[in-house]
Amino acid sequence: MTDKKQNLLLMFDRPQEPSFMVKKDATDVSHKFDVPQSFLSDRYKPIGAEIVNRFGEDEGNKIPVTEISLPPLGEILDLGRQENFSLFIPKHRKLAGRMIDIFLGMRNVDELQSMALYARDRVNPYMFNYALSVAILHRKDTQDLDLPSFIASFPDKYVDSRVLSRAREEATIVPAGSRQPIEIPRDYTASDLEFEHRLAYFREDLGINLHHWHWHLVYPFEAARTVVDKNRRGELFYYMHQQIIARYNFERLCNKMKRVERWTEWKAPIEEAYFPKLDSLVSSRAWPSRVANQRIQNLNREVDQIKIDVDDMVRWRDRIYAAIHSGFVNGENGQQIQLTENEGIDILGNIVEASILSPNRNFYGDMHNMGHVFISYIHDPDHRHLESFGVMGDSATAMRDPIFYRWHAYVDNLFQDYKATLPRYTVAQLDYPGVTVQDIEIKARGGTANVINTFWQQSDIDLSRGMDFQPRGSVFARFTHLQHQPFTYNITVNNQGQARMGTCRIFMAPKFDERGNPWLFRDQKTLFIELDKFRVNLKQGMNTITRNSNQSTVTIPFERSFRNLDNNRPTGGDALAQFNFCGCGWPAHMLIPKGSPEGFTAQIFVMVSNFEDDRVNQQIDGFCNDAESYCGIKDKLYPDRRSMGYPFDRMPRDGVDTLQQFLTPNMRAQDCTIRFNDRIVKPTART
Amino acid sequence: MTDKKQNLLLMFDRPQEPSFMVKKDATDVSHKFDVPQSFLSDRYKPIGAEIVNRFGEDEGNKIPVTEISLPPLGEILDLGRQENFSLFIPKHRKLAGRMIDIFLGMRNVDELQSMALYARDRVNPYMFNYALSVAILHRKDTQDLDLPSFIASFPDKYVDSRVLSRAREEATIVPAGSRQPIEIPRDYTASDLEFEHRLAYFREDLGINLHHWHWHLVYPFEAARTVVDKNRRGELFYYMHQQIIARYNFERLCNKMKRVERWTEWKAPIEEAYFPKLDSLVSSRAWPSRVANQRIQNLNREVDQIKIDVDDMVRWRDRIYAAIHSGFVNGENGQQIQLTENEGIDILGNIVEASILSPNRNFYGDMHNMGHVFISYIHDPDHRHLESFGVMGDSATAMRDPIFYRWHAYVDNLFQDYKATLPRYTVAQLDYPGVTVQDIEIKARGGTANVINTFWQQSDIDLSRGMDFQPRGSVFARFTHLQHQPFTYNITVNNQGQARMGTCRIFMAPKFDERGNPWLFRDQKTLFIELDKFRVNLKQGMNTITRNSNQSTVTIPFERSFRNLDNNRPTGGDALAQFNFCGCGWPAHMLIPKGSPEGFTAQIFVMVSNFEDDRVNQQIDGFCNDAESYCGIKDKLYPDRRSMGYPFDRMPRDGVDTLQQFLTPNMRAQDCTIRFNDRIVKPTART
Repeated sequence: MTDKKQNLLLMFDRPQEPSFMVKKDATDVSHKFDVPQSFLSDRYKPIGAEIVNRFGEDEGNKIPVTEISLPPLGEILDLGRQENFSLFIPKHRKLAGRMIDIFLGMRNVDELQSMALYARDRVNPYMFNYALSVAILHRKDTQDLDLPSFIASFPDKYVDSRVLSRAREEATIVPAGSRQPIEIPRDYTASDLEFEHRLAYFREDLGINLHHWHWHLVYPFEAARTVVDKNRRGELFYYMHQQIIARYNFERLCNKMKRVERWTEWKAPIEEAYFPKLDSLVSSRAWPSRVANQRIQNLNREVDQIKIDVDDMVRWRDRIYAAIHSGFVNGENGQQIQLTENEGIDILGNIVEASILSPNRNFYGDMHNMGHVFISYIHDPDHRHLESFGVMGDSATAMRDPIFYRWHAYVDNLFQDYKATLPRYTVAQLDYPGVTVQDIEIKARGGTANVINTFWQQSDIDLSRGMDFQPRGSVFARFTHLQHQPFTYNITVNNQGQARMGTCRIFMAPKFDERGNPWLFRDQKTLFIELDKFRVNLKQGMNTITRNSNQSTVTIPFERSFRNLDNNRPTGGDALAQFNFCGCGWPAHMLIPKGSPEGFTAQIFVMVSNFEDDRVNQQIDGFCNDAESYCGIKDKLYPDRRSMGYPFDRMPRDGVDTLQQFLTPNMRAQDCTIRFNDRIVKPTART
Repeated sequence: MTDKKQNLLLMFDRPQEPSFMVKKDATDVSHKFDVPQSFLSDRYKPIGAEIVNRFGEDEGNKIPVTEISLPPLGEILDLGRQENFSLFIPKHRKLAGRMIDIFLGMRNVDELQSMALYARDRVNPYMFNYALSVAILHRKDTQDLDLPSFIASFPDKYVDSRVLSRAREEATIVPAGSRQPIEIPRDYTASDLEFEHRLAYFREDLGINLHHWHWHLVYPFEAARTVVDKNRRGELFYYMHQQIIARYNFERLCNKMKRVERWTEWKAPIEEAYFPKLDSLVSSRAWPSRVANQRIQNLNREVDQIKIDVDDMVRWRDRIYAAIHSGFVNGENGQQIQLTENEGIDILGNIVEASILSPNRNFYGDMHNMGHVFISYIHDPDHRHLESFGVMGDSATAMRDPIFYRWHAYVDNLFQDYKATLPRYTVAQLDYPGVTVQDIEIKARGGTANVINTFWQQSDIDLSRGMDFQPRGSVFARFTHLQHQPFTYNITVNNQGQARMGTCRIFMAPKFDERGNPWLFRDQKTLFIELDKFRVNLKQGMNTITRNSNQSTVTIPFERSFRNLDNNRPTGGDALAQFNFCGCGWPAHMLIPKGSPEGFTAQIFVMVSNFEDDRVNQQIDGFCNDAESYCGIKDKLYPDRRSMGYPFDRMPRDGVDTLQQFLTPNMRAQDCTIRFNDRIVKPTART
């Protein structure tokens, strides 16, 4: 680490420990900022000399800090050090925006370092992390920095509070070399008496929750317009969440549960409870539980500057449906904005979420976001009990709660209702004349054809960077997650024309519905989860396409989700720049649903579409676009011109009732079996 | 500290830190148990040598530990180290009972020390603390030990979790001499939007909660019969809790609130919510919140071995009322046990609570205790969510929740209904012929006659003994509590007979009801709070009785509630023996209700009763019976032969509608004003 801007990353280490304490870099080397006396917070100023004696000379490379004249933090300090922080709360977004502007306005890295150090010990630690991350990602002179994983700074948003307390004991008593990983129990938030708990392995998966946090970091719904206005972001909001619901429903069917019920009755009690059992180390408060049978209520929380009625949600919903059923939305000046066949979904996505790209936010409101906010304040709607928001109020934790899926099933259904108004794909829009998919086989090494094996695996992540005020040295948490044996797709394609290019689209869906009956296509189409999508060069005649499951364009590998194992990292400037973007991506270990011990029957679907119709005219370097299907590519167009979800995003043409009837020659379906084996694979030794 | 049994007390220090780590005694001297390798817990055995190097030689007096053959802990270990522990849960009581038996069975202090050390690192820390405390109190060879205050070991049961996290920062960064007290905010559990929050200063008072914990420690409802069967314990259960409700209602009237409503509709939603904002450091879980409008439900928690229906409560209640209205209870063998005029209340108290002294627990059940249990599991009645009990499930925390008072108002009303069946006191039973109370005046130094001034005061308590895995040295929490200016009672008594003795009984009640109207005596009588009770020698003729408010026989001084300031402690063997008993006692700073800024009108009531009718024939040494009215005296009879609450414990004789009409010449009432001044008195400097 020779580049001095790398020192900025030290500020993510031990977010609550004051800046004058030792900071460790990614390779565990100690550093210490030479913090000017004037930067010390009020608590430490009077004892500055003592503290310098205590923490001053003993350890670490000294980093000089320029004493500059600092702008006042002003209202940024309105959010206390021990508060929780949520981007869903407009007031918090506004304060974070001020902080970001200050960081962006610093003239060089030196000044940014001084400003950040000064702010670090005064500003809310969650907000500081967010603002500095955004600033680093968007400043020309820092955007090649490789931000540490969010879970490293704030493990408390992901890990059972008990694990953190045991880690504290381990760190205090056991020397670094002899420490044992602390196991995160598999069933700690509920038992199987709670029907919904069967899906806890999915809802509470660390990788899934990191993906969700990353996705919303990359696609904020409110920020400077240059940050928000990414190519097809409204459509991707629809599609990424559609896929989450499809995957969730797939997992439910694997667990003999019916598909998730939409949350439609907003004034009725919510039956399912959720007890997150997470403690915020910053706020020193537990994340509030959501008990059974509570109702959302009108919100009037002065502290958050939120005043909104449930009826506001109803009005927004009705207006959005009016737009869907009339084919246009009302712009701010009364003009009609058409929801066109291909771009309408993007507009609608921005309206529903809502992002600042929504063409008329006053009229269509803020439905999806406020749904999160209403639920997250269900226990204290008027702040009389001084309670903060529940897990639904933070994109880092929202996916843990079963209500997340009921809410997003509602949102998704609204999008599906819109899609049902669009023209059906004709055979011509689906077929690739002369291209026939003749055979599909998937196979794991040494495995049976068309059988995917799933099981539990354990992995370790280091908690120590988030364990403020504790002795140093790694302490690992060991968590148990779903995993599947890697496999290969072997796809045989007959190209009766010239050599040409195609896009190979691979999906999978359950073969039978909850009753064990075959699907109507109109139902099954919303259950297809995307597994992969890639360009293929078709030579004339028979082609065999071979593709490994770990090449998927929806997933990122374990190391990229967690980044606490310093291997498999890209190196060098531009590669690093995109690495953060690529913290976004479905975790590879969750690519394949769990299946069932007796073997769950699914259908693999492969389509080779005409690349000329798919192509997006741009140069993309091949690096770090791993999860482009769910996350797009940084600063580029979305790399597929088709509507997201194609060919399953619309109602089928007349006469098509089943998947078989839907298929054109360039598509094929293949039954396969997902077999779950209830064993636990221990982690590979750390290197 | 020369006596080696004193070393037992070291085990209460830092309850989660393993036994091989340094322990501090009450005077802050370091000690270290020379823990045999075979005593180490499984985690530390393999690295025993390393640990000895790390924690072995550096600090503290070495305490030799005898390696004895240890009985297996067996099912005692069924309660995990990180579980919460409650005496209300029969299974927990049973396990604690085993642990106590093992400790009591050790042949000498040496063996007890070995056994306790071995158990300490294996057994649940709350249960260990409880079992060792009981054993020390009841072993002949240890009962003179002076147990540390419960709040010192487990500040997390009393102090906002945020304070503990700030204390952690302070302890890590700031050298011991420069540390500042962490202020516990006055309004952290709710805001004034929540109507009930006006009483938070009472419900969350540390001294009141410590008193309640202590009372139930001294009067357990289940344990060896020799421990439970204390003189008039059932009656004291009634009276102590009656006084809590009277005091609570007095405070409510001071705050312009109506008297607490009894919780009668057990199947209806409970309107008031409570969010304790306490974290258990042992279980690393927050104490569950109780949100608004929840209903208790049938309990079926296998983990706690609790299976009970709300209808069971209904049946018990109906049977208890049948006993009250028929004047006898059904014994286990079908015999009728009369509820006699003076002893009936004691039986009824044991039935209602219920204690093991209840004559027919199968029939009359466990009403009061199970009320606590039902409410404490309101959020997770069948343990599907793996949640522990709320604050109502622990006597150390129950008084924080507003529902505690609604429940105990119900229980108290039941006792009042019973008392209403008893013969009224005749004038002869009330009067003390020839003795006339002629005048009452109370006065603070430099104050106005019959005006009591109240205000806020801040006090500090040391948290460091409960802050496991943190650097050593005191860290203080500063809390704000009600206080009053000390005052003197000047009572003029005319004795027209011979010199004789009397019992001076001092009570106080609000003068007006919620509507501002004078009371009917039948209502006012339940609002009288006892302030003091003491023997007076009356000489012939005029007597002036002078008594200081801080001599009250219901309170204990601040230092005895908290015992972290090592002054005002009794010294010497027998004195110490009773000191623990005397941890029980209403906190002196809460003797007088808050009053109001405009001046709240109360009535002081003084009665001088005939000592010959009050006398209990026993020798009592005058030491450490400070709070005898609420707590009794260890190993002695209750020091007043009258029914507890006399003369207000029964309906008045015919023709008495007002307090004035109730008075016989040996009684007198005097209006007084309680004036609250909203200022905060800073703590006196620590010495």
